[in-house]
Amino acid sequence: MITTDVLIIGAGPCGLFTVFEAGLLKLRCHLIDALPQPGGQLTEIYPKKPIYDIPGYPTVLAGDLVRNLMEQIAPFRPTFTLGERAERIEEVGPRRFRVTTHRGTVVEAPVICIAGGLGSFEPRKPAIEGLAQFEERGIEYMVRNPEQFRDRRVVLAGGGDSALDWTIYLADVAAEVTLVHRRRDFRGAPDSVEKVHELAETGRIRLLLDTEVVGVQGNGHLRELTLQHREHGAFTQATDYLIPLFGLTPQLGPIGSWGLGIHKNAIEVNTFDYSTNVPGIYAVGDINTYPGKLKLILCGFHEATLAMQSAYQYIHPDKKLSLKYTTVNGIEAFA
Amino acid sequence: MITTDVLIIGAGPCGLFTVFEAGLLKLRCHLIDALPQPGGQLTEIYPKKPIYDIPGYPTVLAGDLVRNLMEQIAPFRPTFTLGERAERIEEVGPRRFRVTTHRGTVVEAPVICIAGGLGSFEPRKPAIEGLAQFEERGIEYMVRNPEQFRDRRVVLAGGGDSALDWTIYLADVAAEVTLVHRRRDFRGAPDSVEKVHELAETGRIRLLLDTEVVGVQGNGHLRELTLQHREHGAFTQATDYLIPLFGLTPQLGPIGSWGLGIHKNAIEVNTFDYSTNVPGIYAVGDINTYPGKLKLILCGFHEATLAMQSAYQYIHPDKKLSLKYTTVNGIEAFA
Repeated sequence: MITTDVLIIGAGPCGLFTVFEAGLLKLRCHLIDALPQPGGQLTEIYPKKPIYDIPGYPTVLAGDLVRNLMEQIAPFRPTFTLGERAERIEEVGPRRFRVTTHRGTVVEAPVICIAGGLGSFEPRKPAIEGLAQFEERGIEYMVRNPEQFRDRRVVLAGGGDSALDWTIYLADVAAEVTLVHRRRDFRGAPDSVEKVHELAETGRIRLLLDTEVVGVQGNGHLRELTLQHREHGAFTQATDYLIPLFGLTPQLGPIGSWGLGIHKNAIEVNTFDYSTNVPGIYAVGDINTYPGKLKLILCGFHEATLAMQSAYQYIHPDKKLSLKYTTVNGIEAFA
Repeated sequence: MITTDVLIIGAGPCGLFTVFEAGLLKLRCHLIDALPQPGGQLTEIYPKKPIYDIPGYPTVLAGDLVRNLMEQIAPFRPTFTLGERAERIEEVGPRRFRVTTHRGTVVEAPVICIAGGLGSFEPRKPAIEGLAQFEERGIEYMVRNPEQFRDRRVVLAGGGDSALDWTIYLADVAAEVTLVHRRRDFRGAPDSVEKVHELAETGRIRLLLDTEVVGVQGNGHLRELTLQHREHGAFTQATDYLIPLFGLTPQLGPIGSWGLGIHKNAIEVNTFDYSTNVPGIYAVGDINTYPGKLKLILCGFHEATLAMQSAYQYIHPDKKLSLKYTTVNGIEAFA
């Protein structure tokens, strides 16, 4: 079991900055995120797109902003549970919450800060009969750890950047890589498309266009796929893994049933400290709502700051808190 | 007379970022600041000190943050009235405020956003008889335009960074530079202190330590100072200018009598849109107060953003406003 001062659910930009503001107050943080890496939408959806409305940055790539935030919070040594969705919450004592992920990881903390963005990103699953029986038994909807595929046979399916990027990456890792796409054209970055065609032409990957995965077979573990070409009909291919990459859709998910006030798929908070109706639970960033709410990263930064001031008081009701400026006091790192 | 959409009072970091958020909504801005350059406290008090709590910047020098903000708002072509204090406000029509500075500059706008930080910075004046009669007639409490001193005789007084920095700068501009300081030791950056001593030793400036300005003489314009050395007594020195640099103290000043709700020297706002009790007047950054208020730059950025959304609706009550993301839409510069 992991114990911490503030359990942050969501490792997007607002969740990451929460670590900084908590750290200034000597509160330690653990973060849970359903995605396999920190950064939330910035990393998952638009890492190479510029953002123009982060104050002080005339322009910054989303991926660079995440890297900078990771560097900014490094002195406070946050810990992470990635690739797991926060599932269940219990109050196990006074000022003591216990959160369990869908994989059974348990974290206890006096304060929870939900920085869940649009919710947890759930993969869009293709409509193939019997798919569920091979999930985590050969079918993976995200690449959490590329080493899992070393020297194995892998089929990827999809036509966007994720499918292209992971095909290129895994070409150097897996024993065999096949990319299956139901159209001829890709939606991804032109240089990635070019690179994939080049890998196919030099025989380093197999590229199946106008083709869909229509069946999965195996015995306890995935062993074979049935593929369907638009004109030439069905055929089978042996494989160890299938990675369908058809995008992610955000879902408020299990948090929706935690007893928090919800309005239009967002968690209601007040603007005094961005706390929810449950004392000790805060919500910051795109997942919260209040009169005037704007879903902007810079607003989440403000919300996280006020939330952590309040969290400190909640954890230490007897201590007086005075605001200290980093320009005057600097940053005192955690050991 | 200057007319604009949003008159921003205060060109510190929050005032500057207000230009950006207004610009995204196609609102033009004019800024008034009592200081001779943009940046507020960051430029005036700690330009070379690092700040650690700007989200996404593990560390940034205050001066660099101001430069980045100026670059970020450049596409929206803000205009400035610097070195003047907003003095008087009148409502001259429906959705029409007129603000006049202490030097008589007039600006009209439907919306006012007060981003005045700790207030206007007023110079600490030395207690010398007859000083007032030479103000702007040879006595300047700030260097607004260094060219004013080209080929003239200048006496600076003070022992901090401003006095040191301007002495070094004006050594290359003025005909004669004298620095008068009532102690032997300076409070400024060691390398500036060293540089000043070097200039004195090579005869490029005159350095008078343990000395104070005790009298000012002239006829319509300053002509001569009486100086008093701690041990050697009084003597006179001819000069064209005296620049006393004894620091600045923030004062809420005239804004305090504009009919706005005031609590402990700050302007009361709500957290829905950071508007004051007067429709069309907003207050953002250190100058405002509300339950939970923290005097942090990052909070002012959030406040400015919500204030400008509301300002747009105030100016265009008939138009529907939808939030557009810069990542999707980019920035459309003003012509």
